Amino acid sequence: MKKIKFGIVGLGRLGEKHAENLAFRIPNAELLAVCSVVKEEVDEVQEKWQIKYGYTNFDEMLKNLELDAIFISSPSEFHCEQIEKALAAGFHVFTEKPLGITVNEVKKVSEVVNKYNDKIFMVGFMRRYDKSYAYAKEKIEKGEIGKPVMIRCYGFDPAQAIQGFLKFAKNANSGGLFLDMSIHDLDLARWYLSSEATKVWAIGGSYGYPEISEIDDAETGVALAQFENGTMGVFAASRNCAHGYHIETEIIGTKGTLRIGTIPEKNLVTVFTPDGAKIECSSGFLERFEQAYLSEVEEFVKCIIENRKPNVTVEDGIKSTILGYACKKSFETGELVKIEY
Amino acid sequence: MKKIKFGIVGLGRLGEKHAENLAFRIPNAELLAVCSVVKEEVDEVQEKWQIKYGYTNFDEMLKNLELDAIFISSPSEFHCEQIEKALAAGFHVFTEKPLGITVNEVKKVSEVVNKYNDKIFMVGFMRRYDKSYAYAKEKIEKGEIGKPVMIRCYGFDPAQAIQGFLKFAKNANSGGLFLDMSIHDLDLARWYLSSEATKVWAIGGSYGYPEISEIDDAETGVALAQFENGTMGVFAASRNCAHGYHIETEIIGTKGTLRIGTIPEKNLVTVFTPDGAKIECSSGFLERFEQAYLSEVEEFVKCIIENRKPNVTVEDGIKSTILGYACKKSFETGELVKIEY
Amino acid sequence: MKKIKFGIVGLGRLGEKHAENLAFRIPNAELLAVCSVVKEEVDEVQEKWQIKYGYTNFDEMLKNLELDAIFISSPSEFHCEQIEKALAAGFHVFTEKPLGITVNEVKKVSEVVNKYNDKIFMVGFMRRYDKSYAYAKEKIEKGEIGKPVMIRCYGFDPAQAIQGFLKFAKNANSGGLFLDMSIHDLDLARWYLSSEATKVWAIGGSYGYPEISEIDDAETGVALAQFENGTMGVFAASRNCAHGYHIETEIIGTKGTLRIGTIPEKNLVTVFTPDGAKIECSSGFLERFEQAYLSEVEEFVKCIIENRKPNVTVEDGIKSTILGYACKKSFETGELVKIEY
Amino acid sequence: MKKIKFGIVGLGRLGEKHAENLAFRIPNAELLAVCSVVKEEVDEVQEKWQIKYGYTNFDEMLKNLELDAIFISSPSEFHCEQIEKALAAGFHVFTEKPLGITVNEVKKVSEVVNKYNDKIFMVGFMRRYDKSYAYAKEKIEKGEIGKPVMIRCYGFDPAQAIQGFLKFAKNANSGGLFLDMSIHDLDLARWYLSSEATKVWAIGGSYGYPEISEIDDAETGVALAQFENGTMGVFAASRNCAHGYHIETEIIGTKGTLRIGTIPEKNLVTVFTPDGAKIECSSGFLERFEQAYLSEVEEFVKCIIENRKPNVTVEDGIKSTILGYACKKSFETGELVKIEY
Repeated sequence: MKKIKFGIVGLGRLGEKHAENLAFRIPNAELLAVCSVVKEEVDEVQEKWQIKYGYTNFDEMLKNLELDAIFISSPSEFHCEQIEKALAAGFHVFTEKPLGITVNEVKKVSEVVNKYNDKIFMVGFMRRYDKSYAYAKEKIEKGEIGKPVMIRCYGFDPAQAIQGFLKFAKNANSGGLFLDMSIHDLDLARWYLSSEATKVWAIGGSYGYPEISEIDDAETGVALAQFENGTMGVFAASRNCAHGYHIETEIIGTKGTLRIGTIPEKNLVTVFTPDGAKIECSSGFLERFEQAYLSEVEEFVKCIIENRKPNVTVEDGIKSTILGYACKKSFETGELVKIEY
Repeated sequence: MKKIKFGIVGLGRLGEKHAENLAFRIPNAELLAVCSVVKEEVDEVQEKWQIKYGYTNFDEMLKNLELDAIFISSPSEFHCEQIEKALAAGFHVFTEKPLGITVNEVKKVSEVVNKYNDKIFMVGFMRRYDKSYAYAKEKIEKGEIGKPVMIRCYGFDPAQAIQGFLKFAKNANSGGLFLDMSIHDLDLARWYLSSEATKVWAIGGSYGYPEISEIDDAETGVALAQFENGTMGVFAASRNCAHGYHIETEIIGTKGTLRIGTIPEKNLVTVFTPDGAKIECSSGFLERFEQAYLSEVEEFVKCIIENRKPNVTVEDGIKSTILGYACKKSFETGELVKIEY
Repeated sequence: MKKIKFGIVGLGRLGEKHAENLAFRIPNAELLAVCSVVKEEVDEVQEKWQIKYGYTNFDEMLKNLELDAIFISSPSEFHCEQIEKALAAGFHVFTEKPLGITVNEVKKVSEVVNKYNDKIFMVGFMRRYDKSYAYAKEKIEKGEIGKPVMIRCYGFDPAQAIQGFLKFAKNANSGGLFLDMSIHDLDLARWYLSSEATKVWAIGGSYGYPEISEIDDAETGVALAQFENGTMGVFAASRNCAHGYHIETEIIGTKGTLRIGTIPEKNLVTVFTPDGAKIECSSGFLERFEQAYLSEVEEFVKCIIENRKPNVTVEDGIKSTILGYACKKSFETGELVKIEY
Repeated sequence: MKKIKFGIVGLGRLGEKHAENLAFRIPNAELLAVCSVVKEEVDEVQEKWQIKYGYTNFDEMLKNLELDAIFISSPSEFHCEQIEKALAAGFHVFTEKPLGITVNEVKKVSEVVNKYNDKIFMVGFMRRYDKSYAYAKEKIEKGEIGKPVMIRCYGFDPAQAIQGFLKFAKNANSGGLFLDMSIHDLDLARWYLSSEATKVWAIGGSYGYPEISEIDDAETGVALAQFENGTMGVFAASRNCAHGYHIETEIIGTKGTLRIGTIPEKNLVTVFTPDGAKIECSSGFLERFEQAYLSEVEEFVKCIIENRKPNVTVEDGIKSTILGYACKKSFETGELVKIEY
């Protein structure tokens, strides 16, 4: 049985997790090469997991013809360029979200992906592979909630992580609250509602951390979107969620409603103390989406082996980015924004 | 100890419940008179609960000087006129929401209420007296969630009641989805956020019952509002909630979050069957707010006895109505609406 | 319409609540007389609620022929005697649980109740009138869970109340953990399982408060009972529940399971803080069973007016007491106890 | 880095899952050999996952000196013999529960394990490695619930699986309800309470499937145990749980309570339909304990690599079996059983 040989670029927190999964937990995958501009990261991972090749230069890694696929987990601003180079060099490509950080950039990626149409390309919208989200999709397709009418998405990062964000945000371009935090939700909304947003109004502010306003971003915000087929989407995002990492999604239909993750439970323990009955909450994305991060890559590997296209397409990456930009523009101007694709 | 003697006008479903409460369950209240244009209703209630006086004419009831207070539970279109007449005749007045059905009308009520300032006047925003909502308010005032940032309100009527609404809606003016259904939520948002809305965008549609569009109303809608102090409000309303009467409110603050009624549980029973673990849902407002309908009137009676003003003022009725009209206008025009008070 | 005129004996915490309900919240009831050996209690209640008659002597109250019914809420050791006297004097009688504190005593009450068969007699097993418990009973009778197989009952008093118990327990005879705390659960088990217990083994200890062992009682205990029809009952009781007043009941059937009060929620608020998602718990029986305390008395009043027997009979009081004694004996001897009726 | 090379015996439903995990998902493990008396199973797995060696004879597999460790997932009656042979042949051994099916047998295993003390031996009490159960243990050790007082364990198999059980039970010896179903719970109780049971009374019956009585077993049963340190355990087991695979554990302490798996949720989706708010339930052990089945083997592999003993010892296997036998004996005799070790 063929093993797909991977080279990964980017060894940050999520990149390292992906590397570990590729090395040990994905059937038919093998991690052959790691790449990061930070040499210490390369050395550490190579030694810890006995990875054969290490690079500090992405172009060098692309010359390694033992590899079958490139996994991109580098900072967002490099995604587009690396996708293009990797496809051009003849590799299958998996890229973390977002596809890119400007609308023009992501449109260009689309052209490249279509050009190298024989290669498998996939964007890391891993929530679609989370077993709860996938279960909800099945139910909708079976008609169990009738026609979807409205989606509500909460994407809240834990307050504990805000100092890290503030340090990072001054030097880097996160894309702003909606592009950075809501991008998964925008993809989910399109997926569940089977339609594209046509109008959006987004508001927000910085309530606990006014310094976020100083960098022209919002700590917490809400966008309301109207979709082509008349359905509606509410997208709330925050970097300051006191109780942890809260990802909640609700799809209201004409015959029923689905809620995913109402309480972002850490595990199945309820603790009864004089304070009450308490369910502790998830601390972050690696804890909440452990299974999804595995399953999306399993699917990618299967697509390569079986030579078929994944469910998540480059179009999903583009349309979600366009919608994210519309939210950003509405938040910045205070006006209702009409969206054109 | 003085007993406050009530005359009630309007003996519909909610009116009859109020009448029963006044007759039997409110300390220091006594129901002395009932009034309805439907003579059968008057006769039935008089006989069933041994009520001394019965009227089919509101003006006649106002001549009864044994009464201390008038309770208005008639159709919305009569509220303003009846409030004015009752105050002018020297009675304390409790009125069901809404204060009235046009902005001009409610502003006029305000003048009248201020003119008869020695009388106790109260609007039936009973949710403030629901023990869960009151508990949430206390927590906010103690600072337990920091500064409120955002409120999300769901006001969903059961799908089972939609045929009744359709029949009623053709002949009467409900005010439209947002005025009819969200008015309690708009009041709660103002109460919890301690601010007034300045901008609103509202969308909606008729997904399961297209006939609602034909009467220029929406079956389900969402409004997003920005408040003067920078906080945000999401108001979803529906007449077609498959699982029952779903009233849910969430207040997100800088240090914590409160949710009221996440699952609109009917009672404390969980039923485990091959379908799963199931909590049955509340069937309607009389079931969900039984305690609040009692407590608001208890408070009104206490205010009369202790000669002090209730917490809910005529201003609350006016401002909520203005906001409800702004939602309606935004829904009808598709545009962002700026609100002026 | 006839109003049933009540005299109440016992004005402790629960007695005062019953008095308030009788005075203001029960249709067709009127509180005409209050009685307590503590004169201050009588005076206070008479003045606060304008009660016509006050007594410090129970026999005196029985001479008041304006009364229709006697409500017994005095300490347990007086129940039997007062029931007998009140029935003999020609009154309808409602008595708080327990029927009495020895098996002989309760058997004698049974004879008396049967003798005055034209009088309405009811024991305060109010849980049967709690809307959640009543709902569960309906479901069982409709066959929704198949045949009941097993019941699990938790009856846990809040740890906050333990100092009060310790003070009281040295001077009075509570009957011990199982008779005092589990009596409602034993009645519920008989009601839901439609059978009588035949064997029981009970164990327990004093884990946080060793002084409870010194008075030959247990702080926390569990009894396992086998019923005549082969069904099973688990009864856990505690005086030291850290999170509050926890009354939980589960009935497992061949086709489904019902749980009542899994989380003893105080209200419908969920609080999200850095500690997690928290539901605060009920603080005591008056908070948890407010509705049931009203409904049981409403039913008693209706029974008098309609001249029919209540659902809860003197037999229920006797059989539950016998089972409670068997638990006590098993706990004291460490042996399996066979029960005879 | 050394990879531990495994041979597995037993390729039933759970055995196949373990084989897949060893082959693809456990860092530093490699599946080199599979063994089953059913040749088709061996062939299928070898081909599907490209496993180098296949055996239909256990003794043959033990001659393969490329192997480091033997994983026993065969029927319970072979465990003891295979453990002994594998240890004697110089392998590390992981065995599925139970250790064996008679008390004498498991005591003999203990001697063997102690004799080959340089080999790593582990029993598959995987619940200890489930992240919720492990989290509860940590909390107890930190003193967050004070001293444990009582444990309640539910081990309920889905009704859907009962036909399979009935077919199997006529030909094989499951050990009876308590040994077969409660063994994990008995281990957990000992682990959480840090004590051994001294007395037990067990009852049960066959309520929906009388044919289970015919094979002298129970469909549903409850055991109540008293532990040496005065703590208490309630163990309910069933083969007929209508709503699915329900594993629930509660530890009540002097300062707090922990509940694990109150609702045996399948995933994080809540479905709102006219029936209510519904959480679908887990369908079986592979779904519920997926993570634990991985983590226990990861721990075993780490123990081999780091040459240290696992947390779960052969003593745990023995003492849990002795307690399971006491439950069985009590159920069969109807008497209270004193336990000696």
